[in-house]
Amino acid sequence: MRKVGICGAGLIGASWAIGFANAGYKSLVYDNDPNSSENFKNIFDKLIQDIKLIDPDIDAEIIKSNIQLNCSMEKICEDSILIQESVVEDLKVKQDIYKQLDELTSKDTILASSSSYLVISKISEFVEHKHRCINAHPALPPHVVPFVEIAGSQDTSKEIINEALNIYKKANYAAILVKRETEGFVLNRLQGALLNEAVRLHEGGFASMEDIDIALKHALGIRWAFMGPFEIMDLNAPEGIKDSFSRYRTGIQNLARQQNTVPSYSDEYLNKLDKEQRQRLDYHDRSDRIEKRNKMIALIRKLKIELGEDV
Amino acid sequence: MRKVGICGAGLIGASWAIGFANAGYKSLVYDNDPNSSENFKNIFDKLIQDIKLIDPDIDAEIIKSNIQLNCSMEKICEDSILIQESVVEDLKVKQDIYKQLDELTSKDTILASSSSYLVISKISEFVEHKHRCINAHPALPPHVVPFVEIAGSQDTSKEIINEALNIYKKANYAAILVKRETEGFVLNRLQGALLNEAVRLHEGGFASMEDIDIALKHALGIRWAFMGPFEIMDLNAPEGIKDSFSRYRTGIQNLARQQNTVPSYSDEYLNKLDKEQRQRLDYHDRSDRIEKRNKMIALIRKLKIELGEDV
Repeated sequence: MRKVGICGAGLIGASWAIGFANAGYKSLVYDNDPNSSENFKNIFDKLIQDIKLIDPDIDAEIIKSNIQLNCSMEKICEDSILIQESVVEDLKVKQDIYKQLDELTSKDTILASSSSYLVISKISEFVEHKHRCINAHPALPPHVVPFVEIAGSQDTSKEIINEALNIYKKANYAAILVKRETEGFVLNRLQGALLNEAVRLHEGGFASMEDIDIALKHALGIRWAFMGPFEIMDLNAPEGIKDSFSRYRTGIQNLARQQNTVPSYSDEYLNKLDKEQRQRLDYHDRSDRIEKRNKMIALIRKLKIELGEDV
Repeated sequence: MRKVGICGAGLIGASWAIGFANAGYKSLVYDNDPNSSENFKNIFDKLIQDIKLIDPDIDAEIIKSNIQLNCSMEKICEDSILIQESVVEDLKVKQDIYKQLDELTSKDTILASSSSYLVISKISEFVEHKHRCINAHPALPPHVVPFVEIAGSQDTSKEIINEALNIYKKANYAAILVKRETEGFVLNRLQGALLNEAVRLHEGGFASMEDIDIALKHALGIRWAFMGPFEIMDLNAPEGIKDSFSRYRTGIQNLARQQNTVPSYSDEYLNKLDKEQRQRLDYHDRSDRIEKRNKMIALIRKLKIELGEDV
């Protein structure tokens, strides 16, 4: 059984451990917090519950038996094909961990960081064997969203990138390649573009938070749940994608010219956001809404699987 | 029975006619093309088929009996509470139609344009009774996406705006208010922000079209199908939306600074897009993919209805 080391066992690490274990890997889990195993057991059942909505036939006992908690750093490094690092989002901490991992693993073990904003050229700056260091950034919530984006630095070898893509794909993740290092990778760059525009629309007095949320969830997101921007543009004019862009380019370019401001995100504005939010959404039902979110994602994935539209 | 006039009976007009008829309005349909009634009958069954996936109990015969084809301009204007104009996207044509509609209707009939980019202050420029003129822009494909964004000009009365919002909501549309006139309204501004960034990522060599599509459909869209940006941000940090934005603002602002270029959409680039697209998606199965898109949207809406998350 091929082994994967899980370094850092919070929600992200736990989701990776379950994902790999469910795909038939042995997940070896290390965390420097002595309570982490107890925490892991507590969230395990909750995560499995969501995953069972996607596939009721999943066997929680087999997954559990493929996860070994309470491992030492040495243990997870011993003969793992890949280490998934998901410690706190702090450059210095990650750099220290990477130096340890580099010393404890064989030279061909892939060292993959879950970091969302810290690029691997920085994280691996003081590592000797940089060729096997990558970003492998998941999406939220990771236990039900089967996505990872892989990015290397200039020092990462092509073989390692390809091997990583294969490993994640075999573990049933939609694995994409970020070909050039960039802050935010692909996921957060797309998300950030939309989020900044949502804030421009709200701050500029064009629409309420409620109405912007409605536009995304009842009009745009309902398509984006199963088709990407280039797939959709192919359907928007009779001759396909080139025809669509030729018709719309002047309009889209005009928008780009107007969407080039940087929202302030000042405390004053965030207080205003918070006030408007609390008038329509109760803070105290946040955990219910998180559960609802996870359930909805799981059920949409179930639908996509049934229709052959999933990963 | 309250009457709604449908001016222009292409796909958009037909969808409006069905939407209003299904909500118990009488849809009176005018089109200057003598073949329009025949075309309407041909697409009616196809549209109803998709709508039935959302709600199998929908009665096509009742909807049909609430739609009157082949009306004259005078007929649709006679005593309708609202005229939905969906003629060709050409300012001059729309201005001429609005002048006719203004003369033929009573002064309180709402004159609503389906235009996606032409703002109502332009469309109604030569109209005498501007106070009842609005944009009422639907989403694609309109027969299964229950969305409309309402925008007035400076001359539009508040009463008309509120009455329009009520009419569309009663007809089961998610109706939002665009409070200040702006090109692209809310829907296309959000969509344009994402589309321009998708093209920047592709043109800049950061990711393939295939991988950008995967990031949207398998990671982002799966949440956006039922939650808007502000609902999601409320769940991303323990203290809610303000906490989330406080943590992420530096990162999001950095992205905004980098996402301020205007893609060229040159013919050379569009040819490149087209070539890459055709290597992975066959042009000749476009109509199958359109059918698949409509079916997926209908089934996600069915799921949302079952979970109390629809309009």
